[in-house]
Amino acid sequence: MQLNDLLNHTSEWLKGTGPNSDIVISSRIRLARNLDKARFPHWADKVQGRQTLETIKEGIARVDYLKRTTFFYLADVDNVDKQFLVERHLMSLDHAQKPENKALVVDDEEIISIMINEEDHIRMQVMQSGFNLFEAWNIINIIDDGLAKELNIAFLPNWGYLTACPTNAGTGMRGSVMLHLPALVMTRSIDRVLAAIAKLSFATRGLYGEGTQAMGNFFQISNQVSLGPSENEIIESINGLIRQIIEQEKQARDNLLTKNGPLLEDRINRSLGILKSARIISSQETIELLSMVRLGCDLGMVKDIDRRAINELFIITQPAHLQKIENIKLSSEERDLKRAELIRNKLNIH
Amino acid sequence: MQLNDLLNHTSEWLKGTGPNSDIVISSRIRLARNLDKARFPHWADKVQGRQTLETIKEGIARVDYLKRTTFFYLADVDNVDKQFLVERHLMSLDHAQKPENKALVVDDEEIISIMINEEDHIRMQVMQSGFNLFEAWNIINIIDDGLAKELNIAFLPNWGYLTACPTNAGTGMRGSVMLHLPALVMTRSIDRVLAAIAKLSFATRGLYGEGTQAMGNFFQISNQVSLGPSENEIIESINGLIRQIIEQEKQARDNLLTKNGPLLEDRINRSLGILKSARIISSQETIELLSMVRLGCDLGMVKDIDRRAINELFIITQPAHLQKIENIKLSSEERDLKRAELIRNKLNIH
Repeated sequence: MQLNDLLNHTSEWLKGTGPNSDIVISSRIRLARNLDKARFPHWADKVQGRQTLETIKEGIARVDYLKRTTFFYLADVDNVDKQFLVERHLMSLDHAQKPENKALVVDDEEIISIMINEEDHIRMQVMQSGFNLFEAWNIINIIDDGLAKELNIAFLPNWGYLTACPTNAGTGMRGSVMLHLPALVMTRSIDRVLAAIAKLSFATRGLYGEGTQAMGNFFQISNQVSLGPSENEIIESINGLIRQIIEQEKQARDNLLTKNGPLLEDRINRSLGILKSARIISSQETIELLSMVRLGCDLGMVKDIDRRAINELFIITQPAHLQKIENIKLSSEERDLKRAELIRNKLNIH
Repeated sequence: MQLNDLLNHTSEWLKGTGPNSDIVISSRIRLARNLDKARFPHWADKVQGRQTLETIKEGIARVDYLKRTTFFYLADVDNVDKQFLVERHLMSLDHAQKPENKALVVDDEEIISIMINEEDHIRMQVMQSGFNLFEAWNIINIIDDGLAKELNIAFLPNWGYLTACPTNAGTGMRGSVMLHLPALVMTRSIDRVLAAIAKLSFATRGLYGEGTQAMGNFFQISNQVSLGPSENEIIESINGLIRQIIEQEKQARDNLLTKNGPLLEDRINRSLGILKSARIISSQETIELLSMVRLGCDLGMVKDIDRRAINELFIITQPAHLQKIENIKLSSEERDLKRAELIRNKLNIH
């Protein structure tokens, strides 16, 4: 696989399918693993880092389940491509910063991605469309078992998996669910919901993970505790919380429809109208407007555009995607023009 | 003619034709006249007011040029219809307030309108599309001569025509030109232009005359001096001023196109996109957005909608027009819904 192949392809997590896909964009399980007796990436020198990288590369190559993945040394990937991978949620922004001795392993369908020498030696993730943490867990469990046979993973019976940061030790697992909560935002209930989530020791992040703000009514919710409960217990606890939030968003949508139906219809249609006509548009405004149009699809108010097309627009309008589509480096101003053109072309085909 | 006939009809001043019609909406000449030895309307009692009204009615009926006009006692016109006439610029808001002993005379094409017992006994106006004060003057001059033969008009050789308010005495004439100056507003040059206009003793008003604010970049400019210069001199002075303003607006449009072309195109297309999609829209927002779309037509950026259709939208989206089209009394909220529907229907036919 070439990186460019991904351009003509919808990532698994953007397919807009799976359980509760009107509210849940995607579910993700991430596991942190480290080689035994090898220094953590931020303590390793160049030679040690290289050694770890090659050991893991060879290990991955021997795992049957990972046969259809592609291995990229980040030192060989240019900046736009790195940003492109971040935009597709295949790797973290941190991983893109200093490429030395770092690598990324991705499968064709973008379900699996493995970062090597990020904060931990191995950070693997599996993404699924919709509300589907257990399915992601089933897949990542197979990969984890495969890697455990090939690599000497740091594990202590009483502590579980060791990690560079103690907050990840134990299961080394983080489960996260990306939610689209426009009605809770519009009814100004979101602060109450987020406060409750924080109190229950779950973390909330924006569209692009740690340190990014909530944009376009997207919220990524994940467990903070990875030491103590089992993997199943962690997933069950996330699922329980997410089910409640889904219920609250559904009620907020019903309330909006009952009490402010025309106002909601107005806002949704104006958003679509602006997307169809703008000549200059920022990434931020695009996400905000697409969020409204997505809500319109979910409520049956927008009929001639499907959820998958909107999901794709979220990603292809991002800076690196735009530049890869145009196959040229673009300034911020040029991107705002090209983004508007791309959106018009996609939405005005009817 | 019935008032409802006007609904299926474009007023002369909205036709979007005539000289400089990309910047000048319409030209209007108004003459104030009073019967000799009859009390001005605000001093007359009921009987005197009635007598004046009937005398003028009979006089008008004898003027050949006014044969195809229709006479309306305002006491017989309901409130929505009165507002409808104000929206069509056929009479003033003042004239609509206290209907007793007041009347309005209008021709089928809405070129001529005569208010009886407004501030003066007779306030006649002639409107023309585009920049065309002399044509309006030619027409109103014929009407004025006709009425002077039939009625005993108050006139003093040294003072000219007498009027209820001394600021109108002399010629009794006000010439006004409605301008659309979006580029001067966008380039923030309008305040400088308006200050110059005021210094030259001309008045600036909004879309609906005295006391109304400038909305949607529309400015009505008229002479303040009616005593001293001749009618021709007054018109020449207005024309000279308007020619300068037209030139400045043209330059401002060129500047915008050269320096901010894509930004301008963005704003114009967004405005059209919102008009085509909104489900709730106020009268104020409608005017602001239509102003941008009109500019788009004038600049050739909006191609599939003509200026006349936009001009018509300015008027049929006004509150009384909406209610007459729907043939039902509507609350403000209901109007905002119906207005959006009407605009969508008119703009989405392509």
